[in-house]
Amino acid sequence: MNTSELSTINPFFVMEILEEAQQLEKKGMQIVHLEIGEPIEKVDHRIISFAKKALDRNKDKYTNSLGLIELRLLISKYYKNNFNLSIDPNRIILTLGSSGAIILSILSSTNYGDEIIIVKPHYPCYPQIIKILGRKVKFFETFEKDNYQINFKKLSNSITKKTKALIINSPSNPTSISQSEEILKKISGLKIQVISDEIYQGLSISNNVSSIFKYNSTKTIVVNGFSKLYSMTGWRLGYCILPKKIIRVGQKLQQNMFICAPTLSQHAATKAFSIPEKNKNVLLMSYKKKRDYLIKNLNKMGINIDYYPDSAFYIFCDFSKFTNNSLMFCKEILNKTGLALAPGIDFGDNYKNFVRISYAGSFSDLRKGVKLLSNFLMKYNV
Amino acid sequence: MNTSELSTINPFFVMEILEEAQQLEKKGMQIVHLEIGEPIEKVDHRIISFAKKALDRNKDKYTNSLGLIELRLLISKYYKNNFNLSIDPNRIILTLGSSGAIILSILSSTNYGDEIIIVKPHYPCYPQIIKILGRKVKFFETFEKDNYQINFKKLSNSITKKTKALIINSPSNPTSISQSEEILKKISGLKIQVISDEIYQGLSISNNVSSIFKYNSTKTIVVNGFSKLYSMTGWRLGYCILPKKIIRVGQKLQQNMFICAPTLSQHAATKAFSIPEKNKNVLLMSYKKKRDYLIKNLNKMGINIDYYPDSAFYIFCDFSKFTNNSLMFCKEILNKTGLALAPGIDFGDNYKNFVRISYAGSFSDLRKGVKLLSNFLMKYNV
Repeated sequence: MNTSELSTINPFFVMEILEEAQQLEKKGMQIVHLEIGEPIEKVDHRIISFAKKALDRNKDKYTNSLGLIELRLLISKYYKNNFNLSIDPNRIILTLGSSGAIILSILSSTNYGDEIIIVKPHYPCYPQIIKILGRKVKFFETFEKDNYQINFKKLSNSITKKTKALIINSPSNPTSISQSEEILKKISGLKIQVISDEIYQGLSISNNVSSIFKYNSTKTIVVNGFSKLYSMTGWRLGYCILPKKIIRVGQKLQQNMFICAPTLSQHAATKAFSIPEKNKNVLLMSYKKKRDYLIKNLNKMGINIDYYPDSAFYIFCDFSKFTNNSLMFCKEILNKTGLALAPGIDFGDNYKNFVRISYAGSFSDLRKGVKLLSNFLMKYNV
Repeated sequence: MNTSELSTINPFFVMEILEEAQQLEKKGMQIVHLEIGEPIEKVDHRIISFAKKALDRNKDKYTNSLGLIELRLLISKYYKNNFNLSIDPNRIILTLGSSGAIILSILSSTNYGDEIIIVKPHYPCYPQIIKILGRKVKFFETFEKDNYQINFKKLSNSITKKTKALIINSPSNPTSISQSEEILKKISGLKIQVISDEIYQGLSISNNVSSIFKYNSTKTIVVNGFSKLYSMTGWRLGYCILPKKIIRVGQKLQQNMFICAPTLSQHAATKAFSIPEKNKNVLLMSYKKKRDYLIKNLNKMGINIDYYPDSAFYIFCDFSKFTNNSLMFCKEILNKTGLALAPGIDFGDNYKNFVRISYAGSFSDLRKGVKLLSNFLMKYNV
């Protein structure tokens, strides 16, 4: 028996904080969750009802490996309506969360040992998934002073013969910023495989729905899903749209690795497309209020947010006035006050002074959290 | 953009046949499905009701990465009741189907390039998953004349310095045979990592519930799930039980690759453990009847089954009297008669003359299928 070389990969620190918080909750402590990117909203009643209907009709066996054609047609229609694009539903694979979509996208478009660029600050799991799959991570940094926009010229220059793919995430976790249309357009023309993780699509607070597909819908890969916009986190349903050239590889990977996405979730998600637009506007308005409240109060505490988070539902904050080890800081504040926050180290190893605050929860929790944080920081006497 | 080296992996041929069959069904053709290992039984009403209750209570957000503790405690209790073992629930990871469990087991116990032995005839996806994850496959063959039992001495001799793990599958897909207790015991003592895929546990027709854990519950890995015994295929819920030494790696892999298993499925599956034993006996009796009927009728057609399939719900049949290319044969019979069967090539490249027949469906479908097959074979005039 040998120890896996993967024993050195990072945990998903925010999951660690969440699990520690859940332990404290079991011991009776009240916890305010501003650590996880999990929308508090109840899943729409249309989706819930249709899930029950699927249960009544025993629609719970394996589906086609690509997923239910009904749902893939609706996704295709969504791209028609939003971007006037005709996406062949047979290029869409319904996956086990957007996590499954990222795995299939990487495996079907790169080889073992290939270099993949990810943009810092980054979604915690990207580098781990890339390492697990035997690919190499190359980091490309963006900066608060640039509103976390990608410097395209620098990005182009960082691409070498070894670089085979780029993963972008716009709107982004942990910054909640979107890349500009100009940058998306330029990126769409890169010669390497572009994988655009658009899981926060539709959560732009100004209601600007964008996609790399606007500029290149044949050669780029889109990753998306139902977890964030529809709050269906535990339903584990995402999708990827692959170029024609590699869809067959993607399908074979899906058949062998995962068989198919959860059937009930697939049926239920068909109803996501009949939720009235006005519901979404109410949602975005509530995110706007929470964002503005949070930024205003952070500023009061001496934490200046020098960029403009245009989408829901994170703020990536520089806490260097208070700590140079935000993991320890997050554990301390959790244990002392019951406030759970995400340590910056999850998003890149140079963000040891950063903390990500999520306002995906309720306004009342956000208020409580702001108060706990404010009281806790007082002892630092800034 | 480059083509993935994985473009050469096999599809899961039975999924291909299934998907071709579904196409024909859409065109109005009546199909008899004896190709897929998907139990026809409705999911128990207790499970369905509890899923609805979970929907009503909005229990559909992320869970702990290991999974709901309630369900892990019930799984632990199951091993207590059946084998008098105390399994720490924190060694259990609830996964995205048993597929997810196999992936985590391989990744957490072996390194890139390591050799893993699988036993032929094998579950179609094993070699593909091993290749996808960058490990090397070594085949170990078993034979009908030996009732597909593993020759332990030969197996031991086939282990080299490069061999780091062995995957066994008892009861087995595609043969439906169980390895003897003596063989399980010997295998449990091997120095390499043993991964025991026990997804057909509980489906032994003589109601003999066994596990590698009977002989070594600390160093072996068990993979199991809810798809087969409880017919919950589309619910995508499995689990693996890892040795203490590697559980932390397994958990980090789960956090990064999959986040957690589907939440509704986790809640619903807690009720699987309150299904009365007598229901299982009724199920096993129906499998026994179907098995005996199928073997008798295959014999009549000149297809002799020279081994004893002790578990549900497959028969692995030598069709060499009729074809030396069972993939073509399966496609021909599907298109001409509407009978869907699984080609032997799925289970090892030397099984080109074999066909796997599944009796996981209804007795009436089995009868129809037998008739279609019998009529079709007449033209061969054996």
